[in-house]
Amino acid sequence: MENKPVILIVNDDGYEAKGLKAMVEIAKDFGEVYVVTPDSSRSGMSHAITIGTPLRLRKYHQEEGVEYWRTNGTPVDCVKLGQRVLLKDRKIDLVLSGINHGSNSSASVIYSGTMAGAIEASFEYPAIGISLLDYAPDADFTAAIHFGKIIVEKVLKEGLPEHVCLNVNVPVLPIEQIKGIKITRQTNGYWEEEFVEQSDPYGGKCYWLSGHLVDIDHKEDSCQWALDNGYISVQPVQYDLTAYSALNNIKYLEDEFKR
Amino acid sequence: MENKPVILIVNDDGYEAKGLKAMVEIAKDFGEVYVVTPDSSRSGMSHAITIGTPLRLRKYHQEEGVEYWRTNGTPVDCVKLGQRVLLKDRKIDLVLSGINHGSNSSASVIYSGTMAGAIEASFEYPAIGISLLDYAPDADFTAAIHFGKIIVEKVLKEGLPEHVCLNVNVPVLPIEQIKGIKITRQTNGYWEEEFVEQSDPYGGKCYWLSGHLVDIDHKEDSCQWALDNGYISVQPVQYDLTAYSALNNIKYLEDEFKR
Repeated sequence: MENKPVILIVNDDGYEAKGLKAMVEIAKDFGEVYVVTPDSSRSGMSHAITIGTPLRLRKYHQEEGVEYWRTNGTPVDCVKLGQRVLLKDRKIDLVLSGINHGSNSSASVIYSGTMAGAIEASFEYPAIGISLLDYAPDADFTAAIHFGKIIVEKVLKEGLPEHVCLNVNVPVLPIEQIKGIKITRQTNGYWEEEFVEQSDPYGGKCYWLSGHLVDIDHKEDSCQWALDNGYISVQPVQYDLTAYSALNNIKYLEDEFKR
Repeated sequence: MENKPVILIVNDDGYEAKGLKAMVEIAKDFGEVYVVTPDSSRSGMSHAITIGTPLRLRKYHQEEGVEYWRTNGTPVDCVKLGQRVLLKDRKIDLVLSGINHGSNSSASVIYSGTMAGAIEASFEYPAIGISLLDYAPDADFTAAIHFGKIIVEKVLKEGLPEHVCLNVNVPVLPIEQIKGIKITRQTNGYWEEEFVEQSDPYGGKCYWLSGHLVDIDHKEDSCQWALDNGYISVQPVQYDLTAYSALNNIKYLEDEFKR
């Protein structure tokens, strides 16, 4: 046990999600596993952190090689609690986030709690977020587990570039119909919102956020193309948001103020 | 009025923040202004959206050229409600977010509700997030307003590269001591968490998230260097999270599965 990698698992669908069990299934072959998850669904929480409210951290289950903890925090809080409280005296070798129920391709990566967990971890550790393109609570994770194991084994052996995590998306296909894996970039696209307007029982107006992803890319190196064509998409993701290509285009602002 | 630019203002400190009044002060000289803000502080909410709970949108004030609306949503919800509900039949010319009470330099940009508002807007519009390096509720926004006006005027005239917004941070200095403006990139750094452990009145353990920013960069083109040396920092920011430099380094994953 002593020499096994230490693997921290977080998610955004909460401690009861089937996708979490699937991720434990992937991880437990490779190391000593610690699960820290929200106590309910935190989808769409992105990189939110909990400020001004105390966090709880409670162990709710244990099995051979796996400890399960849950918290009232966000997915990013789960990473921070895992590294700074639960495993503060241990070296973490890998952080896994998910398996998410639903796609995190294209612009979805921005809103995703699953990917925020992986991105937060990538400040210090190799990290992988995995998502299956099926929102159903009883989704079939067989292919995601199969390919997840292969990817985790490779990453534990080869490592990842510093401060880079992986956004892995798995199409809803049986293992034998998946054509392979493609390294991809984020699809150029956006969420087109459709607010559904309703009246509450007291006559007040309210709006339910709804919508769909619009792909304006369609190129072969984009994540959405890979998924639409039967591949698993692996997008390397970074937390440096600088638009480097724009640095020279906005120099007009600098000139204005030179002293 | 007809030909004036339409400007949408959002923030994450809520509708009562002094920084919001400062942003209105900047914007009202340039256009027809619509304010959509959270009904309380939403700091650290990042790019979170509200799923599964209906959103409210209520007008709470009006003055010449400025309409004020508030919602139970996040900063990103404010942008979506502004564009898809309040201004659905209008063309938005510019989205402003802030002025934030507190820095959004370095890794803070990831957690920031203020910058998430600007990033969300940048899918469709030119957008600027402005932050003052002072968390105090009664912070002095004089210099931020002064330079904010100059930046907004320039951006309205020159525009921004597509899908790029600005992360403007203003040091706590009087106008005449600010050395100028620098176009910067995100400082290489991270938040070092310190969870403060306490017992609740019932004997349960809880953890308060605290911490400080660690700068491991110190180079002259980084945002933190600019701020530490008396400059206003303007970082161009994009929502494409792809780590392009890593695309070739992880090809080993693709090879594994070629069919």
